[in-house]
Amino acid sequence: MNFLSELDAEICNELQQLNNFIEQAIKDDQFITEACLPLLNGGKRLRPLLFFTCAKSNNNCSLERLLPLATAIELIHTASLVHDDILDQSSVRRGISTANASYGAQIAVLIGDYLFAKAFQLVAENNYGDEVSLTLSRLVKNLCIGEITQDRSLFQVPTITEYYKKIRLKTAEFLSTCCRLGGIVAGLDRREIEALTIYGTDLGLAFQIVDDWLDFFGDVDITGKALGGDLKSGVVTLPVIRALDVSIQSAFLFEIVTSGFVSDLDVITAIDIIRETDAANYCKTRAFAHIDSARINLPDMQNTSTKISLEKIADFVVDRSW
Amino acid sequence: MNFLSELDAEICNELQQLNNFIEQAIKDDQFITEACLPLLNGGKRLRPLLFFTCAKSNNNCSLERLLPLATAIELIHTASLVHDDILDQSSVRRGISTANASYGAQIAVLIGDYLFAKAFQLVAENNYGDEVSLTLSRLVKNLCIGEITQDRSLFQVPTITEYYKKIRLKTAEFLSTCCRLGGIVAGLDRREIEALTIYGTDLGLAFQIVDDWLDFFGDVDITGKALGGDLKSGVVTLPVIRALDVSIQSAFLFEIVTSGFVSDLDVITAIDIIRETDAANYCKTRAFAHIDSARINLPDMQNTSTKISLEKIADFVVDRSW
Repeated sequence: MNFLSELDAEICNELQQLNNFIEQAIKDDQFITEACLPLLNGGKRLRPLLFFTCAKSNNNCSLERLLPLATAIELIHTASLVHDDILDQSSVRRGISTANASYGAQIAVLIGDYLFAKAFQLVAENNYGDEVSLTLSRLVKNLCIGEITQDRSLFQVPTITEYYKKIRLKTAEFLSTCCRLGGIVAGLDRREIEALTIYGTDLGLAFQIVDDWLDFFGDVDITGKALGGDLKSGVVTLPVIRALDVSIQSAFLFEIVTSGFVSDLDVITAIDIIRETDAANYCKTRAFAHIDSARINLPDMQNTSTKISLEKIADFVVDRSW
Repeated sequence: MNFLSELDAEICNELQQLNNFIEQAIKDDQFITEACLPLLNGGKRLRPLLFFTCAKSNNNCSLERLLPLATAIELIHTASLVHDDILDQSSVRRGISTANASYGAQIAVLIGDYLFAKAFQLVAENNYGDEVSLTLSRLVKNLCIGEITQDRSLFQVPTITEYYKKIRLKTAEFLSTCCRLGGIVAGLDRREIEALTIYGTDLGLAFQIVDDWLDFFGDVDITGKALGGDLKSGVVTLPVIRALDVSIQSAFLFEIVTSGFVSDLDVITAIDIIRETDAANYCKTRAFAHIDSARINLPDMQNTSTKISLEKIADFVVDRSW
């Protein structure tokens, strides 16, 4: 986890304790523990990191108080990935076999359900109150609506507005919710909580745009994912939308991405067409604009190191290569 | 819904208002509303009925206070059915096309997730408090564990203890949770809440045993389901367990149910073998014993009509033909 080394040792310790807590949390059933543990390893832990960082803006918030909710956040994230992998029929994620590939769709559905339920159990058990529970349930609901919207518009070209609506529901709202929950648990005032939420939204938009950029321009050795994966599964993202707008081979690219089946050769052709345009720069510029906006909206907080950490996270999100 | 006609007009009115509330609750997205509404129609509404009946043991509990939680209960039930239908690859439930058959596994996973999330949102939004939220999240978690246990032991013959463990997680805990939540929301004392929970558990065990009985001895015209469905999908239930114990053709039956594939002809053969034993009576006797136990555990309550209603529900559960 390369970007964490740039953060302070305290955060590294916290994430280690989070890993221990996660491991303890999923001990309801031997099979479930064995099945879930590998799925929960190896993530960037960006969501709990945002939550921890925002919650620490109030120095009185102990790590013990934060661990169950941070775990709930990571369980929800993993549950949605487990269910996504059924949708995408993916066989590998984070370098290991997906639940779908290991146990079949049936068990993968139930493992995802278990992780969602366990998350809500942790929240209720630790008396975070109805606002936290409401925020999380709305998040899961909107994740579903975002995924359904995406799944029902495969091999279709969205407008920029439609693209933004989808990445807002799919990603940005999750990151902003982590910041928001940090603010709520820390007992910040409403103005600060709203500011953190806006920071998280911009951060999330940038994060997803970079993700979509990496799918065409990333280094396969670093990302561990083949290029053009979105294209193959019919998800039309910002680099394609831009290329369709400006490429002289726009009609040909349109035919490929809307054909309903994208072969390996189609992927190579499409990537060539996209790379001949300014799509890479266009996406990076948009991502940087969101990061600038995220930074500007950061409020001054009681704990000044919080602001510095959130700025570092913003830089990581847009500079990352994985 | 034939058994409701035996209950009083008040309950019929409440269930009508529940239907209206459910319809209003799932209006987040046009596609979701259209997809979910048919799935939410046509159930027995046994779970909300238990919840309403127990909650009304305190006369001060208004229907308005109960509707969001009753809706959450029905959404969770429907979500688990939607996900079950993916597992079983069922094409029809309650006389209509399943989400899986209508929209494919991908969307069906997400529709189930949406319904789960919406349920927790309703609970948090209406300030039922952490105990209610905790009870519901534990319920969903145990439903998953029950289903996973079942899915991992298909075409295997459980012991009676294993069978009971599974139906406890799959069904009995759900019915007992509905009773328990009624007691909690009504503000009953702990002793009464525990008594209602025990009633619900016995009721649920009887309910599932009758369900398993109906799969072999039901009237297809009334149940709307072909006989031997469990057998075909590899789920070995009480009638089979009993027949394996007492039939002179036990070895042949064992071979059929553990073969890993049960043909239509196998189903007919198996049903013939089972019907030649005392399995039907054996199951009915066990179901009646649980109903007796459920009745005995009912506490005397402030509202005497509650006890009468719960006794009526117990009679329906064991006498029903659908």
